[in-house]
Amino acid sequence: MKFYAGLRPWSCVLIVIFTTSVAGAADLPSWNDGLAKTTITDFVSRVTKVGGPDFVPPDERIAAFDNDGTLWTEQPVYFQGAFALDRVKALASQHPEWKTKEPFKSVLVGDMQPLAATGQKGILEVIAVTHAGMTTEEFSKTVSDWIATAKHKRFDRPYVELVYQPMIELLQYLRANGFKTFIVSGGGIEFMRPWTNKVYGIPPEQVVGSSGVTKFEEGADGRPVLMKEAKIEFIDDGPGKPVGINRFIGRRPILAFGNSDGDQQMLEWTAAGSGPRFMAIVHHTDEKREYAYDRKSHVGKLDKAWDEATERGWTLVDMAKDWKVIYPFEKQ
Amino acid sequence: MKFYAGLRPWSCVLIVIFTTSVAGAADLPSWNDGLAKTTITDFVSRVTKVGGPDFVPPDERIAAFDNDGTLWTEQPVYFQGAFALDRVKALASQHPEWKTKEPFKSVLVGDMQPLAATGQKGILEVIAVTHAGMTTEEFSKTVSDWIATAKHKRFDRPYVELVYQPMIELLQYLRANGFKTFIVSGGGIEFMRPWTNKVYGIPPEQVVGSSGVTKFEEGADGRPVLMKEAKIEFIDDGPGKPVGINRFIGRRPILAFGNSDGDQQMLEWTAAGSGPRFMAIVHHTDEKREYAYDRKSHVGKLDKAWDEATERGWTLVDMAKDWKVIYPFEKQ
Repeated sequence: MKFYAGLRPWSCVLIVIFTTSVAGAADLPSWNDGLAKTTITDFVSRVTKVGGPDFVPPDERIAAFDNDGTLWTEQPVYFQGAFALDRVKALASQHPEWKTKEPFKSVLVGDMQPLAATGQKGILEVIAVTHAGMTTEEFSKTVSDWIATAKHKRFDRPYVELVYQPMIELLQYLRANGFKTFIVSGGGIEFMRPWTNKVYGIPPEQVVGSSGVTKFEEGADGRPVLMKEAKIEFIDDGPGKPVGINRFIGRRPILAFGNSDGDQQMLEWTAAGSGPRFMAIVHHTDEKREYAYDRKSHVGKLDKAWDEATERGWTLVDMAKDWKVIYPFEKQ
Repeated sequence: MKFYAGLRPWSCVLIVIFTTSVAGAADLPSWNDGLAKTTITDFVSRVTKVGGPDFVPPDERIAAFDNDGTLWTEQPVYFQGAFALDRVKALASQHPEWKTKEPFKSVLVGDMQPLAATGQKGILEVIAVTHAGMTTEEFSKTVSDWIATAKHKRFDRPYVELVYQPMIELLQYLRANGFKTFIVSGGGIEFMRPWTNKVYGIPPEQVVGSSGVTKFEEGADGRPVLMKEAKIEFIDDGPGKPVGINRFIGRRPILAFGNSDGDQQMLEWTAAGSGPRFMAIVHHTDEKREYAYDRKSHVGKLDKAWDEATERGWTLVDMAKDWKVIYPFEKQ
């Protein structure tokens, strides 16, 4: 505070005012001109216009983004699923019993059918052995190591390179306009936090996701640890998303972006607030550059939320038409 | 961004550098000179000194504060308890059966003994009828109305005036030095969020607390609502505090402030991280201006955490000696 007086504080104030209220096409270079882009920039212009009828104070500019299929690719399997299967393989030598025990036996020889056939039961078993029985710090390190080395088969690239360039630009554009950006994902909160800040500019405390129970204990060296238990605590999906938003953020977003039926209630919750609202869905229409799927997909099914979006005039982003590039590496 | 070039951006950068690294006595005017104050300002100087051995990037300057007894008074009963009892009285006309049913019968005539005698059971019953069976929005409004009107008997002032002026200054001082301040309280998260931003400058998304289950439903008018159910979801107290910190914040604080045994594990968790750490306890030693209590108190018992603090050299703040004023109104 002391050094303020001599240093032309007004120029600083002016910069802040200008940079937080300027919405322009130049900010979203990977978006084609069209309805989706215009709807976004119009909304941002309205809520940031000081004295305008739709002005929203920066403090209340809460933006919620689904992750899988909205900020990064989710096909052919959720990336956290790929992580879990890689961990089963890595841990197999410590579990000789898996050679004869389903669903592990089949997973180890690359046959996913028996796992899929068990439904939630088998998946929870896999989650239990790959996401629990270790401290939160150990798990975080396991995720960081995996994300730095594992590659998506089709693209032969690390998973964090399969984020959507237009959405990265949108996150930056919103933050430059005073928004606080949050992830609200069905994915595991501790699976996302080790890398979201670096990849999306979203710090751990702005990541909402599904979680397992953790327990405070004394560790082997006497230091306290948080042990991850094989027990689901919270599923941040479908009707769980508004619950997670209320629990973690404690206020209602004015903007929400999803891509599947798992995001429908988050979009409804966002829409139900008063004042200006923006709800959007990424529609995966680009088989060539990414994937094309909607009503019949096992991963990221978009059916009821699509109907509701159409009926209520929410923004539909057509990946093939609206995005100049999908991934950051396409720019190079 | 566009307007940056013409406006002497360097002056702005300089201001930011200076204002986020200046730690001085002038920032904590209600603190007496002494060990507690010096320890705080020394710690902040060290972690903000660019290039110094203890420098911590702003992003990782996470500060966690207990609320009851650390940021505001908690005697003779937790203020949320006073809220619950006021609500029982307000709701009594809708519940004629309470006239003959404990613990409500006694509460309604001002006798707290039968409620205390039931232990957790009775308190949970009171919480169930006063904190559930309504939407999150309705509850938030009830809290806001109560906090604006109810008064503490001894001081004859609204509860939000019974916050500690030295701690308000500390929160501001930390934020001016790049810290992100969080509340980590055993109190109800939805009881705190309606007023913490105004009173402490801590927004809803930086409040961690105990919570009840909420359920996404269609409301009477077709709009979706979150209904508060009479079921405890999470107790953010004792060993629950590191769990809550991990769940909501997702990184370990470098500074934590508490006042009772319920904060012990939060302080241990903070202490167990690597790099510079600051742990402190507010000791209630001022019967005249506030209250004096520690090892034998039913509310805010400070016993084991005090021993650990002494043993490990954590900072002990002696309210009577270290604070020039307790409450903001004393300054007037």
